[in-house]
Amino acid sequence: MNVIEKLQAIRTLMAAEGLAAYIVPGTDPHASEYMAAHWTETTWLSGFTGEAGTVVVTMKEAKLFTDSRYYLQAGIELKDTTIELMRASDIDCPSINDWLCEALQAGEVVGVNPEMWSVNEYASMRNAFQEAHIGLRSINLIRQLWTENRPSIPLTPLYEYEERFAGEGVQAKLTRIRKAMAEKKAEAMVISALDEIAWLLNIRGFDVEFNPVVISYVVLEQDKVTLFVLPEKVDAAAAAYLQREGICVMGYEDVFAYLNKLQGTVLYDGAKVNQALYEAIPEACRKVNAQSPVLKDKSHKNAVELEGERKAMLQDSVALTRFFKWLEEEAFAGGQKQTEWTLMEKLHAFRMMGENFVMESFGTIAGYKGNGAIVHYAASADNCAEVRPEGMLLLDSGGQYLDGTTDITRTIWLGGEIPQQAKLDYTYVLKGHLALGHIQWPRGTRGNQLDALAKQAMWKAGITFGHGTGHGVGHFLGCHEGPQNVRTDMNPTMLEVGQICSNEPGIYRTNEWGIRIENLVAVEPAPRTEACTTEDQFLRWETLTLCYYDTTLIERSIMTEEEIRWINRYHQRVYELTAPLLSPDEAAFLKKKCAAI
Amino acid sequence: MNVIEKLQAIRTLMAAEGLAAYIVPGTDPHASEYMAAHWTETTWLSGFTGEAGTVVVTMKEAKLFTDSRYYLQAGIELKDTTIELMRASDIDCPSINDWLCEALQAGEVVGVNPEMWSVNEYASMRNAFQEAHIGLRSINLIRQLWTENRPSIPLTPLYEYEERFAGEGVQAKLTRIRKAMAEKKAEAMVISALDEIAWLLNIRGFDVEFNPVVISYVVLEQDKVTLFVLPEKVDAAAAAYLQREGICVMGYEDVFAYLNKLQGTVLYDGAKVNQALYEAIPEACRKVNAQSPVLKDKSHKNAVELEGERKAMLQDSVALTRFFKWLEEEAFAGGQKQTEWTLMEKLHAFRMMGENFVMESFGTIAGYKGNGAIVHYAASADNCAEVRPEGMLLLDSGGQYLDGTTDITRTIWLGGEIPQQAKLDYTYVLKGHLALGHIQWPRGTRGNQLDALAKQAMWKAGITFGHGTGHGVGHFLGCHEGPQNVRTDMNPTMLEVGQICSNEPGIYRTNEWGIRIENLVAVEPAPRTEACTTEDQFLRWETLTLCYYDTTLIERSIMTEEEIRWINRYHQRVYELTAPLLSPDEAAFLKKKCAAI
Repeated sequence: MNVIEKLQAIRTLMAAEGLAAYIVPGTDPHASEYMAAHWTETTWLSGFTGEAGTVVVTMKEAKLFTDSRYYLQAGIELKDTTIELMRASDIDCPSINDWLCEALQAGEVVGVNPEMWSVNEYASMRNAFQEAHIGLRSINLIRQLWTENRPSIPLTPLYEYEERFAGEGVQAKLTRIRKAMAEKKAEAMVISALDEIAWLLNIRGFDVEFNPVVISYVVLEQDKVTLFVLPEKVDAAAAAYLQREGICVMGYEDVFAYLNKLQGTVLYDGAKVNQALYEAIPEACRKVNAQSPVLKDKSHKNAVELEGERKAMLQDSVALTRFFKWLEEEAFAGGQKQTEWTLMEKLHAFRMMGENFVMESFGTIAGYKGNGAIVHYAASADNCAEVRPEGMLLLDSGGQYLDGTTDITRTIWLGGEIPQQAKLDYTYVLKGHLALGHIQWPRGTRGNQLDALAKQAMWKAGITFGHGTGHGVGHFLGCHEGPQNVRTDMNPTMLEVGQICSNEPGIYRTNEWGIRIENLVAVEPAPRTEACTTEDQFLRWETLTLCYYDTTLIERSIMTEEEIRWINRYHQRVYELTAPLLSPDEAAFLKKKCAAI
Repeated sequence: MNVIEKLQAIRTLMAAEGLAAYIVPGTDPHASEYMAAHWTETTWLSGFTGEAGTVVVTMKEAKLFTDSRYYLQAGIELKDTTIELMRASDIDCPSINDWLCEALQAGEVVGVNPEMWSVNEYASMRNAFQEAHIGLRSINLIRQLWTENRPSIPLTPLYEYEERFAGEGVQAKLTRIRKAMAEKKAEAMVISALDEIAWLLNIRGFDVEFNPVVISYVVLEQDKVTLFVLPEKVDAAAAAYLQREGICVMGYEDVFAYLNKLQGTVLYDGAKVNQALYEAIPEACRKVNAQSPVLKDKSHKNAVELEGERKAMLQDSVALTRFFKWLEEEAFAGGQKQTEWTLMEKLHAFRMMGENFVMESFGTIAGYKGNGAIVHYAASADNCAEVRPEGMLLLDSGGQYLDGTTDITRTIWLGGEIPQQAKLDYTYVLKGHLALGHIQWPRGTRGNQLDALAKQAMWKAGITFGHGTGHGVGHFLGCHEGPQNVRTDMNPTMLEVGQICSNEPGIYRTNEWGIRIENLVAVEPAPRTEACTTEDQFLRWETLTLCYYDTTLIERSIMTEEEIRWINRYHQRVYELTAPLLSPDEAAFLKKKCAAI
């Protein structure tokens, strides 16, 4: 079936079920950002392959709601599908709920699969629809349609994540989380976020591309912890580990029956736990909807995790230095041809040589010239641009090392004369990246309060960008993790010591170039100053990422002396830490790149 | 009765009524920030005279919750009252609801007067208490206790606010608001915010100190508008005006009976409308809780209002120039003594000579030396510091002119050698004030995204401040108005063209000095740049306030060239616009103060 045929088929089912609309969100029962292929329902239905999007089908229309990262991509992929792009980042774009309330008549009914909606999303949808007298019904239509060639739920083995990498044993984590549960007077908590489960039980897997997680649920009680997972995934070693830690194991789908027998007070994170799980908890239970204590606890990296991150960053620095040296000195030698894809493969190969490297932490974005302006551009072997020794290259990549997760973007000039606007754009981005990276702030400050610091310089030139400035990063886990971030969104999370964030402003000039500069940074306490007027503790960033910036792209006339000092000091540190791991040739190359400006 | 006797009396009533706690918020039935004396219940009960505070009384304890502006003041005023200060701005301070849930036992009941709580506050309180199985009961205890010497509800006359100042007639405003109501399918809207009523009906009064409002309610229907007001306030001219505009008049307390007869859909702003009004709306009505369309509309100043504001600012500039000249040249001549109070009176006198001046827009804050560090310090004739020609003076004042409302803070050095830390503090504040004042931002940006720009410089020195950076300002109305502001709080309001905000960072060094620099600024469209990468409209501030900064306090070595240019250009503008209104002597004084640095 092509997209148009699939839309016809779903409308036939909708008509039979008396539904005026059906919504297919781009997620899975675990509220994951990245999904196993089994759950890529929006892609199956619409052909859109971006990582974030929701398809809404009515009898007359079909819409894809996605954010500004994917506008260009969606525009291309939705061509000839009859599905219309809704630009959800635009302030004039209605929300899905508002759009449906407008599009439908009172008395009509919307269908959704309750496993694909968090309790909070479901409740806000129900409330919005109720006001407009529109019904909401739980029903899984995609299961009835996507019967052929649907990938199974992954069966990769789960394995123990050693304490020497995790920095803390399972029992210590369980004790702390149970204490947080007790403070809310909760006897049980249901956990469905895959990275929370992996962190809590010190387990990892290969179930989701780039994300070393295990598809599973956990019910944590004061005297018991139960992991719900497909039995095929638990081999003898895993079973021994789980038994040693006192973790009971039941089947993946058994979670519903288990929840149905709970008593007392049950804690759940309505932002993560899906509506189907929620409905399985008996009416008689007191249900407390609160942010999972695992989420916050996991974001506070311990000393071992932070030290591991620093080691991983050094591996990244080596790989990137070697890659950039190869790109400058060998890639085009003797008329060799390169494409975005061959560069991605080469970088992957350099990373694979790194100590404790497991896999990439996301699909590398190699955006050459105008492709760099497509924010989450994904080149493929069949569909990618030829790269020549000229113009701008944006390279956003990262690794999953046993020690930690990396994510770094550098933008470099490959050759030819640099247009003045390119220098200005690069320098605005760099100034924002430095302003955010070198701020300190009083404890209690949220990431969204810092966001404008990264935009200040480009705003003055009338330029902005549409993606988040910084996302949280896990430790050998999700490359995106909460609750902390640096975005415009009104996230109430305060930045706290040990949390890791990216710092990645960008400028995207359609058909010309994309420029993004990204480091990972960790919150640390700032030393107390003599001049301070309060007892407030100040916090600041420790820069974890080690890799030089392309100084040939810097327009020095708009840099302050302080900014120049910051760059020179950083380059000196990059060189000193990385050079011992390089060959003399490589070290000489890096020294040149790190020369003071 | 003293405070301890009042607490005893309220506890006796609480015991008789079976209440475990009683809450007295510092507001009135109109959710006003400034109240008529009739409603100053927290002051009557606790002796605390700050503008924001809530008293919570249990059988064993009494607490005053207030924000960091009032910590010092409350500490002094609560001495020997047994009422304990709760520092509500501190991140570790529990909310009132959380504190009560901890302090009380399941089954106990809290009493409140429903007229003093907005619907939203009441609902969130009820929800919080419900989870802890604590009851909530509507009962007015203060009315039973505060029987002697309670001031009456004000009886000052209401009068027409002429269209030549308002810039728009009542009928045009009503039509636009009715359209907004129709979009929400509302047949009626209840309005209780006094500034919204004054703006909507082009009426003013003298019911609340500094605030030219009329204590009243409005019910707006598609074919009718009714003003509920004490009849003593409507004289013949007012009655004629109201009749001419087709505004029906009923008694102040009649609003409850009127609401009780409504049918269909009723719009109300749950953040403003009190619980008692809400409960008067029949069960059968559909009630829509949404931000009042008047609030947003009122914040978009029209061209006449903006031009009026500019005229008022010029009057302020003249008054302040004359005041500062007098202070420098005459105030201490011949051994004359001055106090904070005499300075306040003198400044008031200079303002009163201004065209269209009506009254001050709030109680002037003249904070000399260490008193400047008490953020909302209020000197009185009996209790104020002597001011000598040395050290730091913080002066925050404003006027209500028929043309508009002003609010300006300047901090000046009166004489003697300037400590280096004083220069640094002043310059950090000034750098923040300039950074915020000269930013431009893409449409859709909220005030809280810009807040850190004003703090960036001082944060780097480990310094911060606890009050908002910018509040909305009304037009011949409240000196504080919503919905826009520049604060750390997560206000979802986007800054929009025509909105006026203050820009007032500060540094407060206990027992040493307080420094604050405040201008009023209005949002205007920024010109489109050639380099822009998006279709986004950028916005920026027009600086309305005209008054020089004290350049003797500037530590030039930490200023950028751009910042120096901004100051010199501003001083040139201040001089050029103000000088024609000054005597030659005064102009010469101003020229000296505005000299390029």
